[in-house]
Amino acid sequence: MSGKWKVNFQPSGRRGEVEAGKTLLDAAQRLGVDLESVCGGKGTCGKCKVRVEEGYFEKDAMESRMSHLSGLSDMERKFIKPEDGPQMRLACAAEVHGDVKLFVPEKSRAGKQIVRKAARDIRVTLDPAVKKYCLKLEPATLHDLSKGDAERIREALQTEYGLTDLEMDYTVLRDLQDRIREGAWEVTVSVWMDREIVKVEPAFVTVSYGLAVDVGTTTVAAYLCDLETGKVVNTESMMNPQVPYGEDVMSRITYAMTHEDGLATMRNAIIGGINELIDKITADIRANGADGGAAIVDMTVVFNTAMHHIFLGFNPVYIGRAPFIPAVQDSLNIKASALGIRINPASYVHVLPIEAGFVGADNVGVLIAEEPYHSDDTVLIIDIGTNGELLLGNREAVCSTSCATGPAFEGAQIKFGMRAAPGAIEKVRIDPESREPQYKVIGKADWHTHIEKVNAKGICGSGIIDVIAEMFKAGIIDKSGKFVKDLETPRVRKDADGKPEYVLAWADETSIGTDITVTQSDVRALQLAKGALYAGAKLMMKRMGIEKLDRVVLAGAFGSHIDTAASLTLGMFPDCHIEKVYAVGNAAGDGAIMALINRDKRREACQKARWVQFVEIAVEPGFEKEFMMAMHIPHMKDPFTNLKGLLEKEKVPVNIKG
Amino acid sequence: MSGKWKVNFQPSGRRGEVEAGKTLLDAAQRLGVDLESVCGGKGTCGKCKVRVEEGYFEKDAMESRMSHLSGLSDMERKFIKPEDGPQMRLACAAEVHGDVKLFVPEKSRAGKQIVRKAARDIRVTLDPAVKKYCLKLEPATLHDLSKGDAERIREALQTEYGLTDLEMDYTVLRDLQDRIREGAWEVTVSVWMDREIVKVEPAFVTVSYGLAVDVGTTTVAAYLCDLETGKVVNTESMMNPQVPYGEDVMSRITYAMTHEDGLATMRNAIIGGINELIDKITADIRANGADGGAAIVDMTVVFNTAMHHIFLGFNPVYIGRAPFIPAVQDSLNIKASALGIRINPASYVHVLPIEAGFVGADNVGVLIAEEPYHSDDTVLIIDIGTNGELLLGNREAVCSTSCATGPAFEGAQIKFGMRAAPGAIEKVRIDPESREPQYKVIGKADWHTHIEKVNAKGICGSGIIDVIAEMFKAGIIDKSGKFVKDLETPRVRKDADGKPEYVLAWADETSIGTDITVTQSDVRALQLAKGALYAGAKLMMKRMGIEKLDRVVLAGAFGSHIDTAASLTLGMFPDCHIEKVYAVGNAAGDGAIMALINRDKRREACQKARWVQFVEIAVEPGFEKEFMMAMHIPHMKDPFTNLKGLLEKEKVPVNIKG
Repeated sequence: MSGKWKVNFQPSGRRGEVEAGKTLLDAAQRLGVDLESVCGGKGTCGKCKVRVEEGYFEKDAMESRMSHLSGLSDMERKFIKPEDGPQMRLACAAEVHGDVKLFVPEKSRAGKQIVRKAARDIRVTLDPAVKKYCLKLEPATLHDLSKGDAERIREALQTEYGLTDLEMDYTVLRDLQDRIREGAWEVTVSVWMDREIVKVEPAFVTVSYGLAVDVGTTTVAAYLCDLETGKVVNTESMMNPQVPYGEDVMSRITYAMTHEDGLATMRNAIIGGINELIDKITADIRANGADGGAAIVDMTVVFNTAMHHIFLGFNPVYIGRAPFIPAVQDSLNIKASALGIRINPASYVHVLPIEAGFVGADNVGVLIAEEPYHSDDTVLIIDIGTNGELLLGNREAVCSTSCATGPAFEGAQIKFGMRAAPGAIEKVRIDPESREPQYKVIGKADWHTHIEKVNAKGICGSGIIDVIAEMFKAGIIDKSGKFVKDLETPRVRKDADGKPEYVLAWADETSIGTDITVTQSDVRALQLAKGALYAGAKLMMKRMGIEKLDRVVLAGAFGSHIDTAASLTLGMFPDCHIEKVYAVGNAAGDGAIMALINRDKRREACQKARWVQFVEIAVEPGFEKEFMMAMHIPHMKDPFTNLKGLLEKEKVPVNIKG
Repeated sequence: MSGKWKVNFQPSGRRGEVEAGKTLLDAAQRLGVDLESVCGGKGTCGKCKVRVEEGYFEKDAMESRMSHLSGLSDMERKFIKPEDGPQMRLACAAEVHGDVKLFVPEKSRAGKQIVRKAARDIRVTLDPAVKKYCLKLEPATLHDLSKGDAERIREALQTEYGLTDLEMDYTVLRDLQDRIREGAWEVTVSVWMDREIVKVEPAFVTVSYGLAVDVGTTTVAAYLCDLETGKVVNTESMMNPQVPYGEDVMSRITYAMTHEDGLATMRNAIIGGINELIDKITADIRANGADGGAAIVDMTVVFNTAMHHIFLGFNPVYIGRAPFIPAVQDSLNIKASALGIRINPASYVHVLPIEAGFVGADNVGVLIAEEPYHSDDTVLIIDIGTNGELLLGNREAVCSTSCATGPAFEGAQIKFGMRAAPGAIEKVRIDPESREPQYKVIGKADWHTHIEKVNAKGICGSGIIDVIAEMFKAGIIDKSGKFVKDLETPRVRKDADGKPEYVLAWADETSIGTDITVTQSDVRALQLAKGALYAGAKLMMKRMGIEKLDRVVLAGAFGSHIDTAASLTLGMFPDCHIEKVYAVGNAAGDGAIMALINRDKRREACQKARWVQFVEIAVEPGFEKEFMMAMHIPHMKDPFTNLKGLLEKEKVPVNIKG
């Protein structure tokens, strides 16, 4: 059947028409419906369950009535369980062939994320790439026909400020004469890198803004800086609007490869999202009579390599397959107008350099913010976003690598995993005697004490680290991650497949109507993630001949929220004195801010990005052994004791490139 | 009355709807009707006469019937003569207030112009700004993760060709990876000024094109050059699509000032026109399997200052009033994509510098093509386009000026004047005895011999110079330009106002049904034009202490078609041996070509444009006296003999700034 069909999503009430053959996930994305899609529509996560209210007749007695959806696929049969209730489908699999009405259960909703990235105070010399100069020009007369207005401004900049050979952007030229006369021959000129005039404003204007942006896979954070003081004057953040097209990097690369206009769609989403952030972050500036985004005369941006390519409209296919070659590694200066970014159109967006196919400009941001190359101590910097990126070294040498941690730290691949949104269990303690848990839910001030209903919905990344560390300490799982048998507690039981699970919250404490549990598979997913981190760090240490870490720096929003003790308990990274393990928040964003307010930081970024040695850990000798060892809690000397056999028996796929 | 009304133009049959209150000229421009508008709709030329076929009831007996046009204005009463026939209106004055049908008489049609600009062979060292380099790259492997594809290309260019610090345009980066792999790691890279990579093509491509464009007020000429040989391989030209908005520079500046979006309208017209030329000039390239305009990797452009500003979207108001200050004088390099020019989008359009408010980049083109600064001889270079521009000097010093010749040389302000189009009388001889003329019409191979009907329609610029020189030689007019009284020939008669006129063609030799005459006003218009040129040259000579010209170079299409002897007879420029007076064709276009194929010519243009001394002749002492003297045929020592009195009696406005 061809044509278009009406699709109606409840409880949001969003409705519209889609072409026959599109999936319900396509429809949800087009209509802006809040629907989880961790795997980006590849049918591997099973998170996009929706209940069909009208138009689907799974077991209809009247055979003459046609279903308005495609038939149930094998993939759906695998993910949909009896406890999900009747008429349930996976949105990514069910195709529309007639009018339908759907209900999105709360569990399938992505939810509005709480964004916790925030920039620290940064100490750096104020020397921005864009500077403002006030000029009082000689009005033109008939006796002075030797120059045009552009030459008049250039001469004044040379005479008064010693700036020579300046170019002038074409868009600046276009209204130059009007601007000069509006200001009665007094103008303020913004000059980029002592090389190009990017703005001419009438009259004397001393306030000057720059914007630093950190495009994370999940979160986009923007920092508005006053370029005259170097201070961050406003901060805004949002969920990356590309999330509906896939929650992780590989899902988005796949989306670009498998959808016509997929790249353009995702590119437009992030450009539009940044423009929204610009509108919000400059709302007060507009209120003061100036002109919002146009008041921003400089911008820096960091992201991982895939976000970098998609933002710039580069086909990401080549960074998604061996040999993982990016289009460009060096820093870029691209006109905001060419990118569609709504700041002063003649201004440049400075894209920080990337290190290698898997280590992006965000890691370069971390690098120039934390400056391990100036450190006498040997420092390990772990930036845990959707991927894990490591920097290791000191002033002698620094190595970097990217670890395929998978999205477990972000709550994906975990049965009740979710992002750090309201309802997520974020902290857990388990009494070693009773094995009864206490937990804290995002959005609630107090720890859950079994007295009031807390409406838990799932477990976020820091909660998963906490609960598994606590399960280990309480003897619920052993060093290999296996559930200990025959414990006398109703909290440990078998699931429908006969595998053990730990009940963290009973159904009546939740808003989803079912028990929230931690399964054997969840433990394995976390072991794989932390093992990848640990093994990466260990192999880099080996390669550099480093025996011991002096400091461990946890960068990224996630790094700020995990419990240091829990991370040491689990063995997420090689041993270090607990007082020398600390979080620095969004160091990638800090790096973007530094590059905004100090132009030398841009040179430093380019130079150090090349100087840092990228290590492809998956091809290092001994990787598999190190990885298997690292999966233990804590890591063990002999990995082959029993873990490998266990994993094989449990059919846990041990895959490095997530 | 508001709303929209149907307007139908005959004989072209073009029809459409316009808003109530728009003029018929607005409607004609919108519908693409071929209708003269010399003054650009200011109501001063009276050339846009149209006959109302339906909808206008000038003297309708039934008073209840409403006219569908606004009432006859005083301005129309002035221009419309009984001989024009009934129901005639000026299109620029009559406003539409109902459905109307019009007929455009042949006399009011602009006609398809014959363009006669053509580039000469030019001798200049081949050193284009854009050069192509073929590269065989090492395919990327997992063992070589230190660089992206952009770095790979830059390194190869450095190693193999010694090019360092190259930037790469963003649009090139966007499909770089695809292009490299299409060519199986063999690519051809176009590099601009040894500084920026503007194109990467798969495989080895040796052919390379550049485009030189001369945007004249009336004619746009484009020259396609093979950048590997320096040869012009194709030429195309068209009427400047801005002509409907005003035939001369001041009309267009006025149009921009008086019409909302007037600047944008004219800018879009010229950009669209150049893109059409690009399509035509690259038609064969497309046929050979390449990609038309995108094969052009470099472009240069020249024009006068007003065309320069309109092309670039700069408000031309400031160059239209004292102190006539342009936005910018220096040369510009602007991305084709930013201008909307459809060549390779990452390539630059090089705009040659301008000399001063009235002496544009086209004159700089003439300057670098003719190189008076390398001449031992003292040379006067006259570029007669819609304006007259003069260069005078030798290797010691060169002066420039612009003369307000008015559009008489182009056939405007002449009763039967027209552009050099089919039907225009272009050459004239008058028998001194009989005072009978012979003439040649454009589009006819032979001179008119009174045997066959030649369908003359009017007189073009070279025809006007010829006929007035011949009238002087035949004793029909005297040195002051006044008609000699009581000549025994039916060719000289009084017009309706009692003023003398010379019948050049009888009605039965024409296609317009009336006699084609040369009036006293026509003679005066030409005297003003040639007087401006002569006085300009004379004053520059005085200022530079030059007594005698060694050479006179006539540049521009018009300069190529005027009769050298006639121009000397009339005294268009100070005396020079007739063998040292010669035409060089479109020297402005030649300069654009030189700047395209030799990058030093761009530097030379910037340097010499500043070195040349601009003389504002209207403010030179003695200008009025010189101008009055120069109007005589030939010029006289004492201008006040009788000409000034005559002109005052005839109410001829003597105005310098046309």
